[in-house]
Amino acid sequence: MARAEERPVLAVDLGGTKMIIALVSRNGWIIERHYWNTVAVEGPRAVIERVFEGIDYLLGENGLAPQQLSAVSIAAAAIIDMREGIITAAPNLPDWENIPLKSIVLEKYGIDTYLINDADAAALGEHRFGAGKGLNNLVLLTLGTGIGGGIIIDGKLYTGSYGGAAELGHMIIVEDGPECGCGNKGCLEALASGTAIAREARRRIVKGEKSSLAELAQGKQDDITAETVYLAAKDGDQLSLDVITGAARYLGKGVLNLVHIFSPDMVILGGSVARMGDLLFEPVRRIVGEQAFPLMAKSVQIVPARLGNDAGVVGAAVYTLEH
Amino acid sequence: MARAEERPVLAVDLGGTKMIIALVSRNGWIIERHYWNTVAVEGPRAVIERVFEGIDYLLGENGLAPQQLSAVSIAAAAIIDMREGIITAAPNLPDWENIPLKSIVLEKYGIDTYLINDADAAALGEHRFGAGKGLNNLVLLTLGTGIGGGIIIDGKLYTGSYGGAAELGHMIIVEDGPECGCGNKGCLEALASGTAIAREARRRIVKGEKSSLAELAQGKQDDITAETVYLAAKDGDQLSLDVITGAARYLGKGVLNLVHIFSPDMVILGGSVARMGDLLFEPVRRIVGEQAFPLMAKSVQIVPARLGNDAGVVGAAVYTLEH
Repeated sequence: MARAEERPVLAVDLGGTKMIIALVSRNGWIIERHYWNTVAVEGPRAVIERVFEGIDYLLGENGLAPQQLSAVSIAAAAIIDMREGIITAAPNLPDWENIPLKSIVLEKYGIDTYLINDADAAALGEHRFGAGKGLNNLVLLTLGTGIGGGIIIDGKLYTGSYGGAAELGHMIIVEDGPECGCGNKGCLEALASGTAIAREARRRIVKGEKSSLAELAQGKQDDITAETVYLAAKDGDQLSLDVITGAARYLGKGVLNLVHIFSPDMVILGGSVARMGDLLFEPVRRIVGEQAFPLMAKSVQIVPARLGNDAGVVGAAVYTLEH
Repeated sequence: MARAEERPVLAVDLGGTKMIIALVSRNGWIIERHYWNTVAVEGPRAVIERVFEGIDYLLGENGLAPQQLSAVSIAAAAIIDMREGIITAAPNLPDWENIPLKSIVLEKYGIDTYLINDADAAALGEHRFGAGKGLNNLVLLTLGTGIGGGIIIDGKLYTGSYGGAAELGHMIIVEDGPECGCGNKGCLEALASGTAIAREARRRIVKGEKSSLAELAQGKQDDITAETVYLAAKDGDQLSLDVITGAARYLGKGVLNLVHIFSPDMVILGGSVARMGDLLFEPVRRIVGEQAFPLMAKSVQIVPARLGNDAGVVGAAVYTLEH
């Protein structure tokens, strides 16, 4: 058996669409990772079974017993009560309400178990090993199906007293704006997430506006995703370009708010939507440069995440190692 | 001469309308305070002279030489570069731009000088001696001419790396909303400050809506202030009631955002507008109760400030004593 300090962490990144299950070393290296579909519509019980299968598979493949791990750490797209180890709510995971995931996992494997919000984990990962190494204060947004947030203050993850802080995607920036999965209106998530971008493109096409996406959408509108909108925009499709520019403008206002609230050294944008690159970053940087107080504008960098899909599992592992 | 540990702090709270100059003991007690008008329109040079006159007056009255103070500490309604001791900008103090106030004061009195944002000072004061004693994480809003913000994280004042953080009044919550003194549109300050409440009441009266305020406003619309709107509302004036309810609803969205961002143990509302009491607090608490994620909603108290007008000078003094 490996010595305690060499035992890897079994880290899970449980998202609304996919989950990643990985073995992560104590210095943040991914030893092995596997992707699985979450199939969130099947509900918490089925998803938890799938997580267990994934963990067992990885353990089996590596000839490890649970006791040879230093911990299991689960990053989830959810509002987590970290004191109690409970997933209290999850706008993008149907029916996850007050699920005591920590004790469920603990009972199954009998080793230290940690729960952390996925964007919090990403912020921690990016701060220790990615774009924000060594900075005092940073804010991270993960732009995907939803919009998650993570906050590093004085080099430490800030989660509030109970663990639920940094729901930055649910900052309302448009009074009575489009409905959000959380039940409120005009949240940043409802305006600038991948879901919001795809929905806005579909809405305009249904209205009859011209777009190279319309062909694709003949009867199969679900084929319009943030990614296809991005590809069409790169090919010069005006509607797609407008939709992305619109989302970027909202994102710019959201980041502007965060700059005025935190005056962070860095804002990191991660998640699939952040891969749109300059199309997204240019308007965001311009809005902050023009509209933030100069003291804050000049001291903040706005940069893409570096760890890509691995940020969640790396951060989840980091979190256990520092606790 | 008093022993070093007994020397009081000469604390100044420099607001857009009034300034308070006070002697504060090391345990947060106000030994003596005086109010002065800022007369901000006269610009920084005249205002600084007035601050000096006030300090000299207080020293003279108490038979103190500057060297008998432990420090001079100035809380100002401004965006302050705390590393450099510079007031970089101040939406409610005309022409204050890059004024090196710390070195100006230091040169005049030759003793330790501190600069701090006024709402940051209020947050510190309320945390050490007021409503938020002993809590880990809290957010404070001062609702007056403008809206200032202060953040306590892990029991410590959070100002970002340069000192400019917590400009919570400049969080945009209504895309393309009314113009704000900062140059942006739809900031919380432009929707729920005393200035915004008075402006909205005037706007509706000019439009010809009925109100008991209209009589008062015969040709002298400047007599309509947030306070007169409040008094009229208490007397049953429907327009005044509507205006305050409207501002409270915006404030509720702003506080909701802060609850989702910080999941604080407490949100403290201070400043003159907070004296409207239940008319303001009831809608804010209801919005947070109904619209925040349950984990955050149940763990936050929303309460009035306790130190009243003294929060700024007490906080400014606390800041020097802890540095």
